[in-house]
Amino acid sequence: MTSPPRFHGVWPAMLTPLDAAGEPNLAAVEQLVELFVDQGLGGLYILGSTGQWPLLRLKHRRAVAERAVRVAAGRIPIIVHVGAVTTEDAVALARHADSIGADAISSVAPIYFPTTVDATFEHYRKIGQATNLPLYVYHLSIVNQIGLGPREYARRVLELPNIAGMKFTDSNLHQLGLMVDEGGEQLQIFSGDDTLVCHAALSGAIGAIGTFYNVWGPAVQRARNAFIGGDFTAGRTFMSAFQNALADILAAQSTWTFLRAAMQLKYGIDVGMPQPPLGALDQPWSETDVQALLERVDAAAPA
Amino acid sequence: MTSPPRFHGVWPAMLTPLDAAGEPNLAAVEQLVELFVDQGLGGLYILGSTGQWPLLRLKHRRAVAERAVRVAAGRIPIIVHVGAVTTEDAVALARHADSIGADAISSVAPIYFPTTVDATFEHYRKIGQATNLPLYVYHLSIVNQIGLGPREYARRVLELPNIAGMKFTDSNLHQLGLMVDEGGEQLQIFSGDDTLVCHAALSGAIGAIGTFYNVWGPAVQRARNAFIGGDFTAGRTFMSAFQNALADILAAQSTWTFLRAAMQLKYGIDVGMPQPPLGALDQPWSETDVQALLERVDAAAPA
Amino acid sequence: MTSPPRFHGVWPAMLTPLDAAGEPNLAAVEQLVELFVDQGLGGLYILGSTGQWPLLRLKHRRAVAERAVRVAAGRIPIIVHVGAVTTEDAVALARHADSIGADAISSVAPIYFPTTVDATFEHYRKIGQATNLPLYVYHLSIVNQIGLGPREYARRVLELPNIAGMKFTDSNLHQLGLMVDEGGEQLQIFSGDDTLVCHAALSGAIGAIGTFYNVWGPAVQRARNAFIGGDFTAGRTFMSAFQNALADILAAQSTWTFLRAAMQLKYGIDVGMPQPPLGALDQPWSETDVQALLERVDAAAPA
Amino acid sequence: MTSPPRFHGVWPAMLTPLDAAGEPNLAAVEQLVELFVDQGLGGLYILGSTGQWPLLRLKHRRAVAERAVRVAAGRIPIIVHVGAVTTEDAVALARHADSIGADAISSVAPIYFPTTVDATFEHYRKIGQATNLPLYVYHLSIVNQIGLGPREYARRVLELPNIAGMKFTDSNLHQLGLMVDEGGEQLQIFSGDDTLVCHAALSGAIGAIGTFYNVWGPAVQRARNAFIGGDFTAGRTFMSAFQNALADILAAQSTWTFLRAAMQLKYGIDVGMPQPPLGALDQPWSETDVQALLERVDAAAPA
Repeated sequence: MTSPPRFHGVWPAMLTPLDAAGEPNLAAVEQLVELFVDQGLGGLYILGSTGQWPLLRLKHRRAVAERAVRVAAGRIPIIVHVGAVTTEDAVALARHADSIGADAISSVAPIYFPTTVDATFEHYRKIGQATNLPLYVYHLSIVNQIGLGPREYARRVLELPNIAGMKFTDSNLHQLGLMVDEGGEQLQIFSGDDTLVCHAALSGAIGAIGTFYNVWGPAVQRARNAFIGGDFTAGRTFMSAFQNALADILAAQSTWTFLRAAMQLKYGIDVGMPQPPLGALDQPWSETDVQALLERVDAAAPA
Repeated sequence: MTSPPRFHGVWPAMLTPLDAAGEPNLAAVEQLVELFVDQGLGGLYILGSTGQWPLLRLKHRRAVAERAVRVAAGRIPIIVHVGAVTTEDAVALARHADSIGADAISSVAPIYFPTTVDATFEHYRKIGQATNLPLYVYHLSIVNQIGLGPREYARRVLELPNIAGMKFTDSNLHQLGLMVDEGGEQLQIFSGDDTLVCHAALSGAIGAIGTFYNVWGPAVQRARNAFIGGDFTAGRTFMSAFQNALADILAAQSTWTFLRAAMQLKYGIDVGMPQPPLGALDQPWSETDVQALLERVDAAAPA
Repeated sequence: MTSPPRFHGVWPAMLTPLDAAGEPNLAAVEQLVELFVDQGLGGLYILGSTGQWPLLRLKHRRAVAERAVRVAAGRIPIIVHVGAVTTEDAVALARHADSIGADAISSVAPIYFPTTVDATFEHYRKIGQATNLPLYVYHLSIVNQIGLGPREYARRVLELPNIAGMKFTDSNLHQLGLMVDEGGEQLQIFSGDDTLVCHAALSGAIGAIGTFYNVWGPAVQRARNAFIGGDFTAGRTFMSAFQNALADILAAQSTWTFLRAAMQLKYGIDVGMPQPPLGALDQPWSETDVQALLERVDAAAPA
Repeated sequence: MTSPPRFHGVWPAMLTPLDAAGEPNLAAVEQLVELFVDQGLGGLYILGSTGQWPLLRLKHRRAVAERAVRVAAGRIPIIVHVGAVTTEDAVALARHADSIGADAISSVAPIYFPTTVDATFEHYRKIGQATNLPLYVYHLSIVNQIGLGPREYARRVLELPNIAGMKFTDSNLHQLGLMVDEGGEQLQIFSGDDTLVCHAALSGAIGAIGTFYNVWGPAVQRARNAFIGGDFTAGRTFMSAFQNALADILAAQSTWTFLRAAMQLKYGIDVGMPQPPLGALDQPWSETDVQALLERVDAAAPA
């Protein structure tokens, strides 16, 4: 592999729009990609957990990836999540992502069955070597469980074929910082906890991938840039508003109806609802409440 | 639903034999069913985690269920695990199980995405009402996390449509006992921790479902019966041997190669290997070691 | 050390009676010891957590130990818990226990500050070598956290000076069984989870130490003996009643007022209340409720 | 209570110097207080966990508090930790702190025995009402366990008598931010995780209390001030060096020997070693290694 491209900035963990029958709404996929290109965001992370990969058939995952990459047409980089239950499916999705011109691939660790660190790295290794695309692996929570230090873990990650970075979906920013320093230029670490996007920049995260950047990407991007540029107060003000808004949304246990209503209200895009059990008991939001949340967060971001 | 049948005894969480291409080996499925019928075990729990459901395509799950039920031909009861990532797939598998004549269905709680108790019960409810088959749900580890007492949890389980029982895959035998007493005749609780099979009987478990009963079903059944019948020493002697053997197997981090070698050596049935990442780094076992383990456990069971 | 005595059976983790001023009520200590001698229980474990050691001054711990050992006068064996925050205090208490003729000592692992396995064993080692009394250490929950297998842990315990056994305060009966088998004659393991007293016997526990044996010692002893002697139904019947009664008591979050009322009502002994914060918000129990609980459990034990 | 003073900035969780006999070295206490006054730090938090309160007799705790307050003589504010195993001891220590002119008191939640949220608040309430001093309670990890949201928890804290703030010893900066916003002017929240001192400022922490500020107080203070003042790079550079240095120290499992050597080498103050089991197995550090660590961190702080 030649040196991978340097990604950075705020990346939506893009929603996968579904129609009423639960199948991907490719027209809405196009709308989302165009929206994020227009907003000038850093890139798109598609078909991850927010993109509901475990709920989608493989053919639907391929269809969404193809449409997104074709529409983006190089205007915005795309990382395709190819993680799957079997190594074989993940490898096949990785090759597909390569064949359609994706910029990079990513994978979660093995799911469902208890696993070992070694088995996880073997899974990653097979995915990494399946193509020449840059590979972004997930941070493993197992790091916390078994006393494998974050720096030692980062060193093992660096040995993976075509490794380019990591999606750090954890709130432990000491670990994040240690991995960033251990990985140096070889490891581009994105933070994955929306509520700590600026904090993670302080630990050296090169960018941030998150669900709520579908809704508030530009505000987050402006706040993060201002903060990194030296405006501590802008960072503090925005994080306070953002943390409280997300706490309100999570407390309502109706995240999916919020996301749908917010995308509809703010951008006129219908992302639909995920397949049950996801969102099955979500309650509807009043337009007033959604509008108030949208404005609270946007108003807290610097101009 | 009329009153569900009373199941009991030792049930293998049946392995799903795969061929070299990773597809179900239906001839070996037949061999397994015949074996367990011949051994006089209590029943078969198929396509659960040991049966590798998350790694199998839906069509393969249907094919395995059909073959197993057809071969069993009423000689041994079969619970088909129909749990799936989407409620829709689980419901479809439940209807399929009904259509082929399965005796009951079972389902894990929703996987991968964080969920709530209410959303879990909604998932179960839709599966339960999809057919008239008796439903066996999993014990939720969430019971431990949120302070929902085991008795209150059992009461909620009892409200599910067509509920017949539970697979309690946990080591907390105080909780098991409380649920057994709360559920009474309405809730048939199987224990799911092989290492505590006799202990669970003491907490009132009606039966036991486990991976290692593929290998040692008759020995476990004799020991459990003797223990329940008043032979404390038989229970103690067998549990000691069984717990130590399972600890040895788990310590080797090569459970799948052990299972394959044991089934081959003892019964001449080739169950193959699961699809990676499962078992991908398992090391081979020497025939001598497998034989020694087989004999240690069998010798510890009463005649 | 010559071979330690073989302890066995049901041991109350004896309550430390306090007067209204919060000081030990030595007259009530005498009453408790006489009670348990009369009941023919296996022994007494004094000044443990149930005996509220962390809330007592060292001089009070010494006074209670002296009185209990003097009154017992060899009619019932006594293990004195000498665990303390500093190693120095624990060693001093161990020597004191030796000087007054206690039968054995016991110690919890270091408390409050995070520690390592090695530091814990060093703490135990200094306590063990301080006297010639048999030493009973606690099971370390750290065993579960760091992947030190139970058998390896048992081997390290066996290297401690004057080691005689272990108090296993955990619900994992697979671990208990593995340690029993690893320790053999050298390690007398008492179970410490009241709700699993018979289950633990099935994993080889030589005896049981628990809070509720202050109240129901004879009933537990009869049930445990009957169960070990081959009466499975007696074990099942008693464990069901006992588990449910303890769940009722714990659910009321008023364990200390229950213990006080039960000891008063059943035996006429006033054990007082522990020092706050322990029991500070416990609600009073009606005599009727306490009487009903007492009878439920006693009635479930074999004659 | 009149409005409590506004504390802020970097506060050492002051070490309690001990002599070779394990008794407080009051001369060294004086040296430490003078050092921190000279360094212009924000205040002193004495007799907390770093100050080894659980290992000290009450009379020694009083002696240390008296000496520290007398020497400080109003030149630097002092919070005296008065937490204890019994509520009675904590109340007595609170009154003592008041009598000697301490600026505020603080308390951990009840230790050792499992407790409830209500019992914890009752313990805090009695300590708070014992004097008119401002009270700083600990963040309860129970917040994470039982689903009591951080904002609801902050509201309950605000109802405590004389409440002034909180020591947040946790790495969850989303929770910290939510509590800061909920508490507003009424709740001064100090962060207690040294490795996240600047990150916590971004979540609104008014100051930071930590072990390693005994060694690097001025460097941390300069970095924190520069960061808050808009120098993101200064914050990032320092946090990187500080996080890595602390990871190196923690990996050596010899924190107490490091602290002793560092205080001796840098300031000529002998803080001695804590009482075992604390530090009992700590290995010695070479002067070269300690010097290198001292310089690495100091060099990373802005001038």
